Amino acid sequence: VISLFEITSSDLLGRKGIIQTKKGPIHTPAFVPVVHPEFSKNFIDVKKFHSKFNIDFIITSSYILKKRFGDESINLHDLTGFQGPIMTDSGAYQSLVYGEIEFTPQSVVEFQENIGSDFAVPLDIPVALIDSYPKAKKKTLETIKRSKNLPNLVSNDDTHWVAPIQGGRFLDLVERSAKQLSQVNLYKMFAIGSVVEIMKNYQYDTLIDIILTAKKFLDPSKPVHLFGAGHPSMFPFIVAAGCDTFDSAAYALYAQEGRYLTNTQTFLLSELDEFPCNCPVCSSLTPSTLREMAKPERMRCLATHNLYVCQTEIMNIRRAISSGTLWSLLESRSRVHPNLKKGYDVLLKHSRQLVSTSPSTKKKGLFFVSSSDIVRPEVLLHYDRINQLKFKKPKLLLISLLDNENIELYEFFKKIKSIIMDNDELIKNYEIWILTGFYGIIPLEIGEVFPLSQSVFSHSLTNEQLTKTILKTLDFIENQSFSDVYLIGDLNRFLQILPKIKSKINFKGYSLSTSLDSIQNISSILNLIIKG
Amino acid sequence: VISLFEITSSDLLGRKGIIQTKKGPIHTPAFVPVVHPEFSKNFIDVKKFHSKFNIDFIITSSYILKKRFGDESINLHDLTGFQGPIMTDSGAYQSLVYGEIEFTPQSVVEFQENIGSDFAVPLDIPVALIDSYPKAKKKTLETIKRSKNLPNLVSNDDTHWVAPIQGGRFLDLVERSAKQLSQVNLYKMFAIGSVVEIMKNYQYDTLIDIILTAKKFLDPSKPVHLFGAGHPSMFPFIVAAGCDTFDSAAYALYAQEGRYLTNTQTFLLSELDEFPCNCPVCSSLTPSTLREMAKPERMRCLATHNLYVCQTEIMNIRRAISSGTLWSLLESRSRVHPNLKKGYDVLLKHSRQLVSTSPSTKKKGLFFVSSSDIVRPEVLLHYDRINQLKFKKPKLLLISLLDNENIELYEFFKKIKSIIMDNDELIKNYEIWILTGFYGIIPLEIGEVFPLSQSVFSHSLTNEQLTKTILKTLDFIENQSFSDVYLIGDLNRFLQILPKIKSKINFKGYSLSTSLDSIQNISSILNLIIKG
Repeated sequence: VISLFEITSSDLLGRKGIIQTKKGPIHTPAFVPVVHPEFSKNFIDVKKFHSKFNIDFIITSSYILKKRFGDESINLHDLTGFQGPIMTDSGAYQSLVYGEIEFTPQSVVEFQENIGSDFAVPLDIPVALIDSYPKAKKKTLETIKRSKNLPNLVSNDDTHWVAPIQGGRFLDLVERSAKQLSQVNLYKMFAIGSVVEIMKNYQYDTLIDIILTAKKFLDPSKPVHLFGAGHPSMFPFIVAAGCDTFDSAAYALYAQEGRYLTNTQTFLLSELDEFPCNCPVCSSLTPSTLREMAKPERMRCLATHNLYVCQTEIMNIRRAISSGTLWSLLESRSRVHPNLKKGYDVLLKHSRQLVSTSPSTKKKGLFFVSSSDIVRPEVLLHYDRINQLKFKKPKLLLISLLDNENIELYEFFKKIKSIIMDNDELIKNYEIWILTGFYGIIPLEIGEVFPLSQSVFSHSLTNEQLTKTILKTLDFIENQSFSDVYLIGDLNRFLQILPKIKSKINFKGYSLSTSLDSIQNISSILNLIIKG
Repeated sequence: VISLFEITSSDLLGRKGIIQTKKGPIHTPAFVPVVHPEFSKNFIDVKKFHSKFNIDFIITSSYILKKRFGDESINLHDLTGFQGPIMTDSGAYQSLVYGEIEFTPQSVVEFQENIGSDFAVPLDIPVALIDSYPKAKKKTLETIKRSKNLPNLVSNDDTHWVAPIQGGRFLDLVERSAKQLSQVNLYKMFAIGSVVEIMKNYQYDTLIDIILTAKKFLDPSKPVHLFGAGHPSMFPFIVAAGCDTFDSAAYALYAQEGRYLTNTQTFLLSELDEFPCNCPVCSSLTPSTLREMAKPERMRCLATHNLYVCQTEIMNIRRAISSGTLWSLLESRSRVHPNLKKGYDVLLKHSRQLVSTSPSTKKKGLFFVSSSDIVRPEVLLHYDRINQLKFKKPKLLLISLLDNENIELYEFFKKIKSIIMDNDELIKNYEIWILTGFYGIIPLEIGEVFPLSQSVFSHSLTNEQLTKTILKTLDFIENQSFSDVYLIGDLNRFLQILPKIKSKINFKGYSLSTSLDSIQNISSILNLIIKG
């Protein structure tokens, strides 16, 4: 059996891969432009979406289709002009808002099958932001019920069915949807809904919470879609939280309002004196030329630029996943707006959930640029490893680098190793641990294991964090059974803390500056220690 | 007199403006590509630099020119094919490295005048990274001496002369150069040198220190160039530190090595499966197509892409200056690599120096996304303002929002104002201060002054910073002479600190949750207070 979804690399919960369809491959993560079902009603030539923008997958509205064509026999690919895979929604959301058309679970299935939808959604009931818990629960349970009944309604297997995960801000409902619909084999994909208003209000913290909750319970072999993403500045976050595809109409909606997107900001065309972009539109026009164009042409150009920006950000994200640098991208993008930072903070809070899908080894070094990097998956994984190690030598040498956060660990380990290499007594009887800010304890013998000596630091830990590292370390040492513990390095931080806690450890301290240049001086200290 | 350099907007020490020259305007900040003086030896058609890339200004090498053409009569603009302003270096650096050609102060001036250089440099002696202090000092003093003698050597005023600021990592020498050469009126521009090796080692902290030191003493009406900038990821930082123009050969050098630039990273062409870029090169080619091309054509394409990236980053920076969002750009870019973070940390350390050139009002709100945002120029300026205010009412109401960092100040001020508006006793006898994390004290009456209620926060201060804010506040209150001080809000933080310090203030505390929803409850507390 060929799997529908082939994952080639992953980082955090982001997955780079390919969804294989009869209409062509969808490279993930994929930005899925929302298009008007009628070719002529789009600003941009949908026929060129693939050749010009590398767009693999689009979505369009069942509601508009049904309203315009009723029961006429139509073909989605002919109508839109797009020959790749096309997704349709159930039409439920718009019919709730605008009324007029009645959908039933049965008619929704038939309709989407008949028009040749490649990815279709059973009749769902999105939760609104103002919905009370009981109301949201009723909607979500009904969506689950209908979705579980889908196998009784489908008539062929040309259409891939997508399970709608509703519940919105009520995380227990999201959990319930995810658990229940993961059990229905028919579904080839999931789609998280009930989030459009949340995104419109820039509540990225709530959004990330919803996605992470769903991801915890969804079958990981199937792709996950997000209904109604917005501005490209949020793309890295929803990908890192585990969305493989997501639709957005922002490229066109913003163009309609004369808005010019970048991957982090939005400008009014009227406020630009030059374009901060080199896409084919921007490198052939100036803002003043564009302002003078007739409105339809101006919107076409703006939408084209906006679409380039969205798609380029996707390629940027894919590259970050395959390079293992998605965390860095989030760090950087989270500083663009406090609401993105709040979304990022939720990811940080749940970083434990990101560990198993983050690669345990990477081609590129790890960069530490923020105090919050202390919860990076690689750091958590390191702590897990340390907790599993057994230490059998009777004595402990603890070399503290806490006063020297920026030190190059690779060089440091090399120097220390060359110093102790010939000392049989040390090798036989002493565990040698290096104490660092971000990683805590690093036993010298695992120093070359990724990512320890491939890490690059800038000074960024807070005093609170450094104190916490010491407390954890003391705790960890107490749980071992060393006969002697020798502490080498800048002792001040320890001396401030030790009197305040009741540590049973009897330290012998040796003050030493731990810069790369002065580390040679450790030899004489080691001699002293060995001689007792 | 028309000024050579017209500054249209500034943010931090970054300046958006125009350097007017006879050969055309140079829009700043400007990235100045290094080109080979002979047209045919460049990867990219230099004649199209302006029309295709919006490049206003280029630089080329006197050393290569002199070596190739000796005393032949040549014209720089014909030779390079570039009709805009061209800068030449003195040739000193390369003649020091490669020897062969002898330059004298006199010959260097004559040569650059004869070839039609628009911006030329007197014979300087760059400081090398390994130079001892005495050696560096000797070189720097000789450079200053020669540079001061320039007016005796020049024969016409067609060439703009650029004063070389040497000294390198020895900041006192940089200071001395800057002070001395600011006094020579002949110079139209300054250029900071002795930094190429520092940049090659990614010592951005040292680099920023050098630039900031020079800027402190350079005549602010003249543009400042930086010799030999590198990767575009550093551009925002050198601009923010005050460089108006800077040359870089990275676009070509990286291309030669098969390297593909982005504004934050570098990739080998061989590791890319798609281009994370939409420039004209990347939107018309795939990485595999490019890899299969013949080497010269491949390099031309890579260099073209790299040049687009550099120039786009410049437009991005210009936009950030005119929007007043340069700080945000630095915040974001500093998370890309620990070395950039270290450079940024130097800017943070010297943020006081950025205050006077940062606009005191901006069109866009201020975003607070990091604990280091507490040294933003706008925050320092706010503290300055507060220190100058006189408070005359006898009593103080201090409403603490320290437990609610993310609150929308604008909404909060509006609610508080509507509550106290009708209360004559409050208005007459009570100073009302809101205590926030980033800004500390905000007297209610200045709440609408920029940037206070235009600020958007994410939770990011450390406990240490919050404690510091309280200590500063207590200190500030002690220096006033209030008869009564009422503290409203979450009192816990205060209660933890007050017993530890000897504060003379006699607080009366009223516990209150300060969310936007519960702030109405303040009315009853205010009634209690007024009634005594």
